[in-house]
Amino acid sequence: MGLTIEELSVFCKKKGFVFPSSEIYGGIAGFWDYGPLGVELFNNLKAHWWKFFVQNRENIVGIDASIISHPKVWKASGHIANFSDVSVQCRKCKKFNKVDKADLGKAKCSFCQGELIQETAKDLNLMFQSSVGPVAELSQPGYLRPETAQAMFLNFRLIAETSRVKLPFGIAQIGKCFRNEIAPRDFLFRDREFTIGEFEFFLHPEKMECPLLGKKHLQAAVRLLDAQSQEGGKESLQTTSIGQMLKEKRLNEWHAYWLAEQLLWFHEIGLSDGIKVREHMLSELSHYSSATFDLDFEFPFGSRELAGIANRGQFDLTQHMKESKQNMEIFDEETKQKVIPAVIEPTFGMDRALLAILAKGYHFDKERGNIVLTIHPALAPVKAGVFPLVNKLEGKAREVFDTVKTLFPAQYDRSGSIGRRYARADEIGIPFCVTIDFDTLNDDSATIRDRDTTKQMRVKISDLGQKLGKLISGADTFGKKEKGV
Amino acid sequence: MGLTIEELSVFCKKKGFVFPSSEIYGGIAGFWDYGPLGVELFNNLKAHWWKFFVQNRENIVGIDASIISHPKVWKASGHIANFSDVSVQCRKCKKFNKVDKADLGKAKCSFCQGELIQETAKDLNLMFQSSVGPVAELSQPGYLRPETAQAMFLNFRLIAETSRVKLPFGIAQIGKCFRNEIAPRDFLFRDREFTIGEFEFFLHPEKMECPLLGKKHLQAAVRLLDAQSQEGGKESLQTTSIGQMLKEKRLNEWHAYWLAEQLLWFHEIGLSDGIKVREHMLSELSHYSSATFDLDFEFPFGSRELAGIANRGQFDLTQHMKESKQNMEIFDEETKQKVIPAVIEPTFGMDRALLAILAKGYHFDKERGNIVLTIHPALAPVKAGVFPLVNKLEGKAREVFDTVKTLFPAQYDRSGSIGRRYARADEIGIPFCVTIDFDTLNDDSATIRDRDTTKQMRVKISDLGQKLGKLISGADTFGKKEKGV
Repeated sequence: MGLTIEELSVFCKKKGFVFPSSEIYGGIAGFWDYGPLGVELFNNLKAHWWKFFVQNRENIVGIDASIISHPKVWKASGHIANFSDVSVQCRKCKKFNKVDKADLGKAKCSFCQGELIQETAKDLNLMFQSSVGPVAELSQPGYLRPETAQAMFLNFRLIAETSRVKLPFGIAQIGKCFRNEIAPRDFLFRDREFTIGEFEFFLHPEKMECPLLGKKHLQAAVRLLDAQSQEGGKESLQTTSIGQMLKEKRLNEWHAYWLAEQLLWFHEIGLSDGIKVREHMLSELSHYSSATFDLDFEFPFGSRELAGIANRGQFDLTQHMKESKQNMEIFDEETKQKVIPAVIEPTFGMDRALLAILAKGYHFDKERGNIVLTIHPALAPVKAGVFPLVNKLEGKAREVFDTVKTLFPAQYDRSGSIGRRYARADEIGIPFCVTIDFDTLNDDSATIRDRDTTKQMRVKISDLGQKLGKLISGADTFGKKEKGV
Repeated sequence: MGLTIEELSVFCKKKGFVFPSSEIYGGIAGFWDYGPLGVELFNNLKAHWWKFFVQNRENIVGIDASIISHPKVWKASGHIANFSDVSVQCRKCKKFNKVDKADLGKAKCSFCQGELIQETAKDLNLMFQSSVGPVAELSQPGYLRPETAQAMFLNFRLIAETSRVKLPFGIAQIGKCFRNEIAPRDFLFRDREFTIGEFEFFLHPEKMECPLLGKKHLQAAVRLLDAQSQEGGKESLQTTSIGQMLKEKRLNEWHAYWLAEQLLWFHEIGLSDGIKVREHMLSELSHYSSATFDLDFEFPFGSRELAGIANRGQFDLTQHMKESKQNMEIFDEETKQKVIPAVIEPTFGMDRALLAILAKGYHFDKERGNIVLTIHPALAPVKAGVFPLVNKLEGKAREVFDTVKTLFPAQYDRSGSIGRRYARADEIGIPFCVTIDFDTLNDDSATIRDRDTTKQMRVKISDLGQKLGKLISGADTFGKKEKGV
């Protein structure tokens, strides 16, 4: 590969995918803005996730909760007491490092390998705090949520009462989160403001059998990174199946089902190849989890967490029941029991997924002499380019463009040679380009060119919308049957 | 009408549209969560806006910027100095009121009409403040944005350089904003966390002629609330056209064009009837604006601002140029001049638009004996219900449902009488319900029932997807030609 994260960041700025926030003021560490292409890509990604995990299922409903909630939420969740990192300053480069407590004595500076000043070690809570209510006499602390999950627990009983769902069911959300990181780094990877997509799946605490678990789930191969041996300094990568992990009782059936569904989603957006599943060691587990798997992706700066799936058990509902004095039990129709459900939580770093898509899709094509961004047509910010071969053909080209634009996000480009226009389209990942040439005036046809293969096909303009629709959805491809022109 | 905002709020909670944030902890004033139906309605509304104002136009691009930005942004914008309200406590009910400076001496408590304690008057900045960076030595103040507009000014030059746009062009954004209101009130209307959709349209400062301004824009009638006479205590409502307002030089051509486009969007989502346009008096204008119109909507608690359009001129870009020392001029290809563009800004309160849709759509149908929520099919959270007439028909009904669900958000309902199921569907605004009856087994047809008229039509199951698609998009209707069954 060889692509560095700095190169990717420069590319994203140049093409309008991602800008540093407040760039005219020198930026602000850990904050980024999605530009014109980035916002479309991100919206497509979020909509694809929402359709896959919420709209296409009867057992999951969505919410969109406030970022600021009652301060007791974060007391009950354990975040006020536990959500912290240790900061230590480097004697040499003076930078502040984020260090695990256990590593404090032996860690070196992650920026320059210098010595860390042990006396500067401080345990710092990572929640952004503000004050709700401008009138001092009435104000209370307000925390920006560091995760979206708590809102699902807070609304759990209301949704059980109003939404005609019954156990087992899930509540999903995509939304912004904030963590006051000591050392934000790696472009979109570790930031102070970011977007999470996650859902809490509520189960009868003694019924972990999953009737939906099918062959495709059991066979889903996971490339498993053995966490135990990693601790000893070497990575052993083994491929095992989810069925095998079930037999070894490393997870329960619903945990297995949702892990497989996570992998299936990543497969749909073209990322499954780069993913390894890593089981958390006991020492790594969050305060709320009894078993967690990370889905790590091979980023330009190494293999890092892209998504995860935790077994949160009854921890959160029990905590909120204690703190709020509200009953969090619901009636399970099947067993006729009142239960506090147990929870499986699949989580996705949505900005990280976008970063992974860009990192995987970006490559320099030597033959063409330009960058090609091979991203899934369903996610591509612009689906089609429309070009007149020469300026004389602009009338017809604009006519075609005006039709295409009502159907898909499209771009018209008339400047420079056709080769230059194809290159520009490749660089921003436009999957299909339509060229209007002199023959068009006679045969009322145009040429569609495929980004990934540069193959071309001739299509009647009256069929163009339908053809592009099929190509974008994957119902049709530039297969061997199509003639390259 | 008679619908109160409290009734609407209770309905929204009961049906899963909107919940009070942190309800199990007694809520937190000014914060709300969208529930399972609310999030779908809100996503549809935001997507409709985005398609209308961004994706369908070549002269507008979108962004999605961070909520926290560099603190100098808010110094330059004037928000640190000017974005404040006066708070005064009531002697009788002890509540804190938000009062305009000019009204301080003569105002009464807006909750109980009691006397206000003048000595408690305080000018309070409404921005939520936090601290960025957990390490105290490196931290700087961080403000949660009270509007999305500044990100468009910050990114303006980068976008002009990278996105192949040329003057005039716009930058749009939909995103969360935060205002530490003294007295949040009226359900989704005045909150501390809310969503704005807006765009900044950048123009050559001396070229306000708009070539896109067409007949439909000029003829657009606005019901104009004369602000001058309102000051004297009476509202005078006159109907005029945008063409007339242009003649009277109350706005310039681009300002007129975007005001008309705003009205056209509200017309598309079924809200134009309830809207009045109100011109700001000089004393009301924000520190950045030379002319502003509010689009007020008749809410259950009175006629209030739903959207607005301001002429911000060169104010913001000039301020950022001073504060950042970066050149904010760009080259205008047509005049070959370097200019600091002037800006027209249409703004939409997205939660307010959702509130208006619910308030307008909600009514009790005496004949049916249930609430009917008449919202536009394109916005409805669930597009179709599928019911088996009796339980015996479940096999066929599930089969139909499984197909419909891949095409549109749909709901399956088997419990209670058909009448009860129609009522439940009416209440959450499902525009079309499909019933599988005994005839279905013979003629492979089903009945579609229209929410608004209760008219029914018989459709072949093989045509069902296409028929529903046309009904939802408005390409087909339950017209007089269709037989009521």
